[in-house]
Amino acid sequence: MQKILTIRTDKRNGLYDITHEVVSVIRESKVKTGIASVYVRGSTAGIMIQENWDQSVQNDVVTLLRKMIPHGIWEHDRQDDNGDAHLKAGLIGASETIPVIDSGPGLSTWQNIFLCEFDGPRERREIVVTVISDNQS
Amino acid sequence: MQKILTIRTDKRNGLYDITHEVVSVIRESKVKTGIASVYVRGSTAGIMIQENWDQSVQNDVVTLLRKMIPHGIWEHDRQDDNGDAHLKAGLIGASETIPVIDSGPGLSTWQNIFLCEFDGPRERREIVVTVISDNQS
Amino acid sequence: MQKILTIRTDKRNGLYDITHEVVSVIRESKVKTGIASVYVRGSTAGIMIQENWDQSVQNDVVTLLRKMIPHGIWEHDRQDDNGDAHLKAGLIGASETIPVIDSGPGLSTWQNIFLCEFDGPRERREIVVTVISDNQS
Repeated sequence: MQKILTIRTDKRNGLYDITHEVVSVIRESKVKTGIASVYVRGSTAGIMIQENWDQSVQNDVVTLLRKMIPHGIWEHDRQDDNGDAHLKAGLIGASETIPVIDSGPGLSTWQNIFLCEFDGPRERREIVVTVISDNQS
Repeated sequence: MQKILTIRTDKRNGLYDITHEVVSVIRESKVKTGIASVYVRGSTAGIMIQENWDQSVQNDVVTLLRKMIPHGIWEHDRQDDNGDAHLKAGLIGASETIPVIDSGPGLSTWQNIFLCEFDGPRERREIVVTVISDNQS
Repeated sequence: MQKILTIRTDKRNGLYDITHEVVSVIRESKVKTGIASVYVRGSTAGIMIQENWDQSVQNDVVTLLRKMIPHGIWEHDRQDDNGDAHLKAGLIGASETIPVIDSGPGLSTWQNIFLCEFDGPRERREIVVTVISDNQS
């Protein structure tokens, strides 16, 4: 089963928790054991598994990446002024694969799934969730 | 087929080779061609494919991440004093997907699978291995 | 369905667009909905989803990683003088999983699939593409 989620983002850099939406797709798929692939369509965003106790780790991710990859010093900036966004996206990666266990997500207590926006705000970010069973014919 | 491996870690930061355990699950699954998803449950650890000729690359990974992401300067440290561990985990990622070829792992000679511990020691880290065949009904 | 692509690289550090070859495997597989796992065999290379409008982002990726991970200062350099290549590979990761939508790749307009070479030139880099349907028995 496959579904495309759409998310609105309201900051240039920010993490958006999409766990609830991904879990809904897993439940709807009726897959008991397998995997769920979570993929963001767009080369200036990424997918990260991270804690969501409060806003602190999300802020720290933005701070760290801003320090590692400053804005405005890249060859690509001459085109779009978003070279930093592409580099952050490449480093974090466009996909994560999480296990499906007992018809639910195999996340631990402190693991949530985040869309990482690096070039927002955007009216519409698309995330493709594909759920696949390990139950072979 | 899906199995949960449990690993004990004895350092705050360290890489632990889990190739043997993952390969056992692949063999047991009887899947001939497909993929094996390797996922760590916990937002202060990651999965990395890396060389295991000796300890040197593993030490270098720890050294690099300590330099890139120092301890004690993050907003999240006010809660748990482990902001650095969360950031390292987010950068490395919670999952890797390796191919299954001829009923075995599709690793090259110098590729091993490592659990990356960033907030140990821990009595029990859980790694979920899910093997899926490409053989469709 | 699974295929191994072979790519020749001509630089020590460089990104090589393999989108066309991966899409060919997806089309040949006849899978309508599912995932394609792209995996590089070798612990000094990685797989990255990135824009390919022109050479700029690819150059920026090489520049960023050279700055973050300098050559010649690692413990592993005493063996192979390529400690930096292993660290870059570990950070970028050996695999990406992209969705298959309507019998084609679920990439967005600006997403291409790249082999990242960090220890070239190499006569032969092997990339394993495994396509798996979500259509269960």
